[in-house]
Amino acid sequence: MTTVDTNHYAAPTEIKEITVVNTYDLEEAASKIVPKGGFDYISGASGDEFTLRQNIEAWNKKGIVPRVLADVENPDLSTSIFGHDIKVPFIMAPIAAHGLAHETKEAGTAKGISEFGTIMSISAYSGASFDEIDKGLNGSPRWFQIYMSKDDELNKNILDEAKADGATAIILTADATLSGNRHKDERNKFVYPFGMPIVSRYLTGTGKNMSLNNIYAQSKQKIAPADVKFISEYSGLPVFVKGVQSAEDALLAIGAGAAGIWVSNHGGRQLDGAPGSFEMLEEISKAVAGRVPIVFDSGVRRGEHIFKALASGADIVALGRPVLYGLALGGWKGVQSVLEYFERDLKRVMQLAGTQTIEDVKKSRLVDIK
Amino acid sequence: MTTVDTNHYAAPTEIKEITVVNTYDLEEAASKIVPKGGFDYISGASGDEFTLRQNIEAWNKKGIVPRVLADVENPDLSTSIFGHDIKVPFIMAPIAAHGLAHETKEAGTAKGISEFGTIMSISAYSGASFDEIDKGLNGSPRWFQIYMSKDDELNKNILDEAKADGATAIILTADATLSGNRHKDERNKFVYPFGMPIVSRYLTGTGKNMSLNNIYAQSKQKIAPADVKFISEYSGLPVFVKGVQSAEDALLAIGAGAAGIWVSNHGGRQLDGAPGSFEMLEEISKAVAGRVPIVFDSGVRRGEHIFKALASGADIVALGRPVLYGLALGGWKGVQSVLEYFERDLKRVMQLAGTQTIEDVKKSRLVDIK
Amino acid sequence: MTTVDTNHYAAPTEIKEITVVNTYDLEEAASKIVPKGGFDYISGASGDEFTLRQNIEAWNKKGIVPRVLADVENPDLSTSIFGHDIKVPFIMAPIAAHGLAHETKEAGTAKGISEFGTIMSISAYSGASFDEIDKGLNGSPRWFQIYMSKDDELNKNILDEAKADGATAIILTADATLSGNRHKDERNKFVYPFGMPIVSRYLTGTGKNMSLNNIYAQSKQKIAPADVKFISEYSGLPVFVKGVQSAEDALLAIGAGAAGIWVSNHGGRQLDGAPGSFEMLEEISKAVAGRVPIVFDSGVRRGEHIFKALASGADIVALGRPVLYGLALGGWKGVQSVLEYFERDLKRVMQLAGTQTIEDVKKSRLVDIK
Amino acid sequence: MTTVDTNHYAAPTEIKEITVVNTYDLEEAASKIVPKGGFDYISGASGDEFTLRQNIEAWNKKGIVPRVLADVENPDLSTSIFGHDIKVPFIMAPIAAHGLAHETKEAGTAKGISEFGTIMSISAYSGASFDEIDKGLNGSPRWFQIYMSKDDELNKNILDEAKADGATAIILTADATLSGNRHKDERNKFVYPFGMPIVSRYLTGTGKNMSLNNIYAQSKQKIAPADVKFISEYSGLPVFVKGVQSAEDALLAIGAGAAGIWVSNHGGRQLDGAPGSFEMLEEISKAVAGRVPIVFDSGVRRGEHIFKALASGADIVALGRPVLYGLALGGWKGVQSVLEYFERDLKRVMQLAGTQTIEDVKKSRLVDIK
Repeated sequence: MTTVDTNHYAAPTEIKEITVVNTYDLEEAASKIVPKGGFDYISGASGDEFTLRQNIEAWNKKGIVPRVLADVENPDLSTSIFGHDIKVPFIMAPIAAHGLAHETKEAGTAKGISEFGTIMSISAYSGASFDEIDKGLNGSPRWFQIYMSKDDELNKNILDEAKADGATAIILTADATLSGNRHKDERNKFVYPFGMPIVSRYLTGTGKNMSLNNIYAQSKQKIAPADVKFISEYSGLPVFVKGVQSAEDALLAIGAGAAGIWVSNHGGRQLDGAPGSFEMLEEISKAVAGRVPIVFDSGVRRGEHIFKALASGADIVALGRPVLYGLALGGWKGVQSVLEYFERDLKRVMQLAGTQTIEDVKKSRLVDIK
Repeated sequence: MTTVDTNHYAAPTEIKEITVVNTYDLEEAASKIVPKGGFDYISGASGDEFTLRQNIEAWNKKGIVPRVLADVENPDLSTSIFGHDIKVPFIMAPIAAHGLAHETKEAGTAKGISEFGTIMSISAYSGASFDEIDKGLNGSPRWFQIYMSKDDELNKNILDEAKADGATAIILTADATLSGNRHKDERNKFVYPFGMPIVSRYLTGTGKNMSLNNIYAQSKQKIAPADVKFISEYSGLPVFVKGVQSAEDALLAIGAGAAGIWVSNHGGRQLDGAPGSFEMLEEISKAVAGRVPIVFDSGVRRGEHIFKALASGADIVALGRPVLYGLALGGWKGVQSVLEYFERDLKRVMQLAGTQTIEDVKKSRLVDIK
Repeated sequence: MTTVDTNHYAAPTEIKEITVVNTYDLEEAASKIVPKGGFDYISGASGDEFTLRQNIEAWNKKGIVPRVLADVENPDLSTSIFGHDIKVPFIMAPIAAHGLAHETKEAGTAKGISEFGTIMSISAYSGASFDEIDKGLNGSPRWFQIYMSKDDELNKNILDEAKADGATAIILTADATLSGNRHKDERNKFVYPFGMPIVSRYLTGTGKNMSLNNIYAQSKQKIAPADVKFISEYSGLPVFVKGVQSAEDALLAIGAGAAGIWVSNHGGRQLDGAPGSFEMLEEISKAVAGRVPIVFDSGVRRGEHIFKALASGADIVALGRPVLYGLALGGWKGVQSVLEYFERDLKRVMQLAGTQTIEDVKKSRLVDIK
Repeated sequence: MTTVDTNHYAAPTEIKEITVVNTYDLEEAASKIVPKGGFDYISGASGDEFTLRQNIEAWNKKGIVPRVLADVENPDLSTSIFGHDIKVPFIMAPIAAHGLAHETKEAGTAKGISEFGTIMSISAYSGASFDEIDKGLNGSPRWFQIYMSKDDELNKNILDEAKADGATAIILTADATLSGNRHKDERNKFVYPFGMPIVSRYLTGTGKNMSLNNIYAQSKQKIAPADVKFISEYSGLPVFVKGVQSAEDALLAIGAGAAGIWVSNHGGRQLDGAPGSFEMLEEISKAVAGRVPIVFDSGVRRGEHIFKALASGADIVALGRPVLYGLALGGWKGVQSVLEYFERDLKRVMQLAGTQTIEDVKKSRLVDIK
């Protein structure tokens, strides 16, 4: 028996702007309105949650050295990636099952992303279909994160559909070939309360009432450079390898044709006992040496975090849980509120640190906090 | 709606000597008598208050090596700066809006400073006028901290007035071109309950009922070496650049004509995520290499802290919040009690560390606490 | 008077499979059903339990660098040692007095080990006889841990019996020539509630109603390289020296004929103030340089810990307290559940870290967590 | 008004053996029977008690590397200093005002020390007279700790009396020329509830009803190498300089004729903000390089601590507060119980670490705990 009543999963429904003082408050607020099984799934991580904590702790080991005579006012947060000009250096990270947070599912997030104006990442484990999400996006740019089938014909089929939907890049998540040791989900006997239209083609069922372990078992569990090559060649789109945590993998990925490196430890949800994601960024950035762009996620909760990631070699930062809490608390308007908070916060940090542009941020000096 | 009723802000009014065992107790005591909006404004800092905590933690990473055969008795705390002989190596830091702590506003602080006998820093964001403060100072030395107008003619006007008032140095605060991310003020919807006579000339209003963000927005938000040069040349007074947190800015400031470097992170109130102010002092001091004096603030709560700052390259230490708590608890007499505590405490530390003079302190050895 | 009523020690009796989400939960659960004197004996350590905590803390100072393009699926956990092929790189550590945890004593543990399929270590301080344990083992491999008598003729006698029982290696515990400073046992006035058939030949009594200090005092308290040589030559079996915490001792042991090094600090039960066992592993492994196999114990609670130990030079990991908690909670079936948990957890870690085989694990990179 | 009613200070009176599981328990137990003013005086330290905590924390930064094949049994704890053969490498530290802990005052401590069999240090701030203490000592060796008068004739007089009493060494405490910033005493308005016969010759009064500050003010507040020379030459006895926390002072002291260096930070009671005493030991020991013996105190609570101090260069360790708690809890028998605990604990540590003699301990390896 599970503690998630999949027939009566009562996701939040409200749509409203929300006040964001900081994103930690959002987690607390969301915990009160999202059903426990869903909230634990979103907020939880693997094992002792050591790596989840390290994702946050890692920020505290580096300090931003503010420059105060930099003649800076009204900083410019805009940047671009793969031909998309975006007004901020952050985008939406791919996350499964937004429907746990809000009844509008990924379509709600997509509309918030679109209204704000940045890039949406669509997870193959979405509870909404490409069409539903497309309505929310309303023409905004989108990338597609694939969880591969064991059957490459089906993978082609998925990629075809993503391209048809307008995806301009493919994100290959390589760090999730099976589920991390998620104690909360195990205790809750968590199963998804709704299906997953995009991958249901290769599941025995729709995804509904299935556990994450079960779904992973039916997905491809063995990811290699050849997969990067296959996706890249078949789709003709730039491919990110997501979940890179070492210089070695970054080089392997680039060698296999990756157009971008996505540094992430999956928000601490996969291998517990790994270092904080930010701790590995500098090593990876040095190895990549500017050949391809680097997206960073895992543990980003403040403007300062975005700043530190950019100053350590990231080109773009992806936001995950905080956006989902915004979705829970206010639907698409809540998503927009969260993104506006990050924009406001990063802008303030940039000015206080004495940086006019994202290029300035990238050249900023961090110091070790002993 | 704000939680600060600006028409009925009931600042403390008592004037009495206070017993100071340590300054942490003062914060606790002040929290009970200062209205919440005002207390949070004074005691709070930005973001997660990481930098605020680092300001304190930084002291614990260095230990004073006491010398016990140094033939020391009755240490001499006197020093001098810019021609002022002062009996202690600490002065009052510039702080806005003392009226939040006590109805006598900056005039109360000024009288306490004067009675004790050190230098007052007058903030451009004072709630009292130059004249009111002058009465408190009663001829004592004073420096003036400018928040610049966007209009240099008004800046000249302010500088003229400060000079006429007798300021012997100008402090240019460069780290506060907009407000830090102050959660408490945001939650309290804090606005100042009284006006600011010195800068009201460039505000749309007096400052009363305005938020800090609002006031910063009407001040000059873009500070550059040229501003240092302008103030220095126009006023003919020595200029400190306050908020320096890097060797690079110290050198820029000196190059632009700064007569002194003021190492500070604004008490953790501006860029959260920055290192503790004391952590940056040694680097800056090495870069300055004695060419101009260094004033240090942010996190000074004990005689040991003053000692450590001087031993790391500071020439003078500026005290902020603890003095304001003294003002809240006992008006000008409370201010005097706090200063006497610091004098007593530093004197004891100097003797226990085996240092007869401030020059001895500067040559003392600190060790890393692992 | 003792708090352990040795005539009515009511050890748990239930035999059932148990659900293992993590092993920390097991300690909590066991504390509720094992009599206090027995539970404190099992879970407690010496002194301030500084070293016990360091055994756990040490894991958090190293992070596993996951490799995500490693083409890994369904990792192979099998390895071999001294001619035994085992399906996992972990075995049972020698522990005294399993009867404190369950009425089936070591025979229960042995059956769980045998059903799961790894190597049992039989402690000379077992509460069960060789024959009783043999029934549980049912032909499975076993090693024998000797606590030496002061009389070498009795040692020969014990070794003869162990060989007759089928032991294929001898473990000489060298770090326990007297009891650590175990506060809990001292406060509980703990004495064993049953005898110890294997060593009763050299005790004045059976071991029942005796304290650990008392028993150690009657055992050999002076262990030297000559003892390694004696046991090795007399038994003709490979000898491990257990309790090695320095490169120096590893080399001494090998020089004296040890066939294996067993890195351990006895679960923090002996010298408090020693570093975490894992902290010493790398130094020892470098000194041993592959000449003999290394077994590691002390503080292993998760699959990640096994991974980190192997990646730092261990060949085999031995499990102690968590298995005993499994015994308490479910008898032999509980033991099996715990071992299956470790197998499942290590397998997941291996895949998420990108390692197909135990040899891959050994070559994995760990990073310092600052 | 003070919180110590000096006319009715009810010190404990019981004389009995006590059970010592660890010395931290003793502090807790003593807090319940010693009047608050007295207990706070004994247990408290200066400032934030940062240095007090560092005295304990410092031990946790070094681990003992146990040697397990060392052929050790029944270790020999005996050593000698200045011609005294003592059975353990620890002695009594000089402490003022034992009468706060027990009505038998220093005479009680002295009897416990004598019955156990080590060296007593008699503080010039004793509440008992030389004669009273002599009765307790019953011929046992004693050293005398001088707090100097401003008048050298009186110092000669005190030294004469100490020599007549049989002191075989003089301890010159150099780190206490005035009182540390002791918050608890200040809050308690602590004054001594009895006089100090040895120094009353130079006080305006007996010491009764005087604060520590007051007493220090009437003592010599300026200690220099010349004082070491004076005491050494006048007394003809070996002189320790106590309170040394730097290599520089150790060399100064030896240059001035010190026969021994006493590394101490006065139990954290003087300069708060100094490193833990143990953190400075290695530096000092290297500078002394065996020319004179080193006594170590401050923070010693366990056998492991004694071991670590000896392994870092100390020749003898002095015990303070734990002995006074023993005195409070059981008079001279309690003192003896505490000393026996330390003997038992150190003996165990020596065996578990594989050291047969104190010389072996001194050559033991410690490792940094990261």
